[in-house]
Amino acid sequence: MNRRRERVVVVGAGLAGSLAALYLARQGHEVDIFERRPDPRSALAGPEGRSINLGLSARGMRALDGVGLLADVLKHSVPMRDRVVHSPDGGVRAQPYGVREHEILHSVLREELISLVVSAAEAEPGVRFHFDSLLTSLDRETGTVRVAPTAGGEASTVTADLVVGADGVFSTVRQQMQHGLRANYAQDFLPWGYKELTIPVGTDGQPRVRLEALHVWPGHEALMVAHPNRDGSLTCTLFMAHEGPVSFAALDTPAAVRDFFRRRFPDAEELMPDLVREITEHPVGHLVTVRTAPWRYADRVVLIGDAAHAVYPFYGQGMNSAFEDCVVLDECLTAHPDRAAALAAYEAARKPHTDVLADLSTANFEDLRDRVHRLGYSASAAADRLLARLLPQRWVPLYAMVAHTTIPYADALARANRQDRILRRAGAGLTLAVGLAATAAALRVGRRRRAARR
Amino acid sequence: MNRRRERVVVVGAGLAGSLAALYLARQGHEVDIFERRPDPRSALAGPEGRSINLGLSARGMRALDGVGLLADVLKHSVPMRDRVVHSPDGGVRAQPYGVREHEILHSVLREELISLVVSAAEAEPGVRFHFDSLLTSLDRETGTVRVAPTAGGEASTVTADLVVGADGVFSTVRQQMQHGLRANYAQDFLPWGYKELTIPVGTDGQPRVRLEALHVWPGHEALMVAHPNRDGSLTCTLFMAHEGPVSFAALDTPAAVRDFFRRRFPDAEELMPDLVREITEHPVGHLVTVRTAPWRYADRVVLIGDAAHAVYPFYGQGMNSAFEDCVVLDECLTAHPDRAAALAAYEAARKPHTDVLADLSTANFEDLRDRVHRLGYSASAAADRLLARLLPQRWVPLYAMVAHTTIPYADALARANRQDRILRRAGAGLTLAVGLAATAAALRVGRRRRAARR
Repeated sequence: MNRRRERVVVVGAGLAGSLAALYLARQGHEVDIFERRPDPRSALAGPEGRSINLGLSARGMRALDGVGLLADVLKHSVPMRDRVVHSPDGGVRAQPYGVREHEILHSVLREELISLVVSAAEAEPGVRFHFDSLLTSLDRETGTVRVAPTAGGEASTVTADLVVGADGVFSTVRQQMQHGLRANYAQDFLPWGYKELTIPVGTDGQPRVRLEALHVWPGHEALMVAHPNRDGSLTCTLFMAHEGPVSFAALDTPAAVRDFFRRRFPDAEELMPDLVREITEHPVGHLVTVRTAPWRYADRVVLIGDAAHAVYPFYGQGMNSAFEDCVVLDECLTAHPDRAAALAAYEAARKPHTDVLADLSTANFEDLRDRVHRLGYSASAAADRLLARLLPQRWVPLYAMVAHTTIPYADALARANRQDRILRRAGAGLTLAVGLAATAAALRVGRRRRAARR
Repeated sequence: MNRRRERVVVVGAGLAGSLAALYLARQGHEVDIFERRPDPRSALAGPEGRSINLGLSARGMRALDGVGLLADVLKHSVPMRDRVVHSPDGGVRAQPYGVREHEILHSVLREELISLVVSAAEAEPGVRFHFDSLLTSLDRETGTVRVAPTAGGEASTVTADLVVGADGVFSTVRQQMQHGLRANYAQDFLPWGYKELTIPVGTDGQPRVRLEALHVWPGHEALMVAHPNRDGSLTCTLFMAHEGPVSFAALDTPAAVRDFFRRRFPDAEELMPDLVREITEHPVGHLVTVRTAPWRYADRVVLIGDAAHAVYPFYGQGMNSAFEDCVVLDECLTAHPDRAAALAAYEAARKPHTDVLADLSTANFEDLRDRVHRLGYSASAAADRLLARLLPQRWVPLYAMVAHTTIPYADALARANRQDRILRRAGAGLTLAVGLAATAAALRVGRRRRAARR
């Protein structure tokens, strides 16, 4: 490699920051990565008994594969071959995720995934992790960051050629980088929140429901999904309004909890022996979309992951798109020796697509809430899958493009819209043909009647 | 009045804050109003030789009338009876603002208007102004604000029953009130900025252009408007991109300034002897839209004006809508003895309409930039005015509803959309009628030909 070895600071050692550190070290740079939380591999980091799972799909897999981590991660995951939709009447219907064998998702525990990525990055020459270290300021002109130990003690400064902001949805790097600029910024909180619950492994040691699937309980006022774990348990995420008649706030007694589940998710309630305790003890999470610009400043600062584009979790693309950022940033830094140009190319290549992802994630919330359990929705999804089977090269459902390919999000949406137009025209054509046939038949009948009268 | 006399703190003694203080004092409350800038009536407050004019329309007039200030303000204003559109070829076309005599706008200097409102509020028993006083913190639970003198010195605290945030687009009250809440927030900067310039009174003491009008120089890459002043001068606002080939950044030499004006605004250039100096010395202002929610916290804190809803200036409704906030807040406080309910009613009554105003202001920018000088636009505007003249009770153009009535913005837009649908249907009907007539004529010709052949 001919490039100068540069000093990079990554702020945030979450999934995006840790993977970016690994990619940047592979480019030959010195990388210091600062994280205000403890080392995720230490006992201290445990999320108080909560386990969060993520659905790894094609974009995330490609990013992990690019640094040789995919095989290891897949060993720690459970395949999800289809979406199993549960109705309030107890009915269960499986919808395959793809039309081909490899078109599946992989459920992985966040803490296991992050441990794998951190360990791989730490093993890379030039990468140094600094946990329990809080960014207190950033000088965007010089690339100087000031970092203080969270336990107290003296702050230190580091000056870098490039600062990567991977510090999440309320990013300090973003705030300091955009300060006083004409920056566009929008945050949208969903009136709904979420809570994590558990379907433990059965008393017989077997999973209580089919394991290799994503389970979905759609609903207009509350909905739930469940991801499988390797130990045979599943982690459920219950989504509903923070406040109001049907809300987390209203689940304020054991009777209210039991009654709520019996009416809305009767089959799930039987699978969740710890339900009342978990509802009482687990915190309610917030759901927020963030769109912003710029993502970069000169040749010094750049944002990735939630710091640049936070989305609702309903398309399962938050982590996958953050990982994809690492790949695109790596490609742009390779393609453009001038770093300001590389960062500009990265933002231009990425932002239109993450904006579309934000829209898709909101639309998928509305689908899960209002449409998944309707007959029309599943007929249309089935038509989509049928066409994909008949024309595998030419017809790819939107969900499949998002989850099973690396076609950029906006391009995927444009192609899906073209496909929709074809279907609509075919529908109109069919209607017209039926109408003409009926008219022709009516005319024939008329002629025959007239002939009969003669 | 039966109500308890309450302690109110208003933060920001701009137009919205000063008028709100007056309305609140009339409700019988004690009002302390804090403003970080000097008293606008003092020499210190002069905006460095810049004069900013505002177009007062129906909503603002109603709000001033509600506290008996309208007659005095109108004495300090210049009526604008129509919009005079200047073309690059030197052509000039007047578009009347309304169809009735009273449907005009009034140009008023910001510094004169604020002086009138501040003096009226100060004369009201219970109102105390504190200039040069910066809000440093707000406790939304207790209504306690901490205020420090801008010149240095000891900070003081005041605890209020109600805190009104009228501290502008980057409101500190809003930031402290929303901190940690699920607040939605969006700021959008236009890539265009603005600069204020002058058409001075002529050497003969007469105005250089017709005074009682708003002058507009539309343009795709740069546009200008001019408001009249009582001394016969006009204040121009030039809008264009901050950066790029046609931009403020590109006007970097006297030759570039002269060349730019000669090509784009040839008639204006002759009217502006100080052009080069003003372009060089005057700062470029930013244009930003802010949408947010919530506007209130419990019964303690509420936002008005730009702090709640900043819009681009292209509909001339920024001040008018801020003044209208004061009226609606006053009405809600009167209608609901419970203050939390009053603040909730205020936000519910107001936000849908200011959201629509933000959209209208953006659309009017696009009209001024791209459409005002097109033939189709002025034909359609003329049709709108003609229908308004023929059906004065039933047909009101959108601009007239926004500028000359107090119909809430969203209701005005809905009605304009209904009118548009009627026009479109009429257009389609007309097309169909012409088509049928042509077909009938063709058939008649055909029959006559066949008859002639026989």
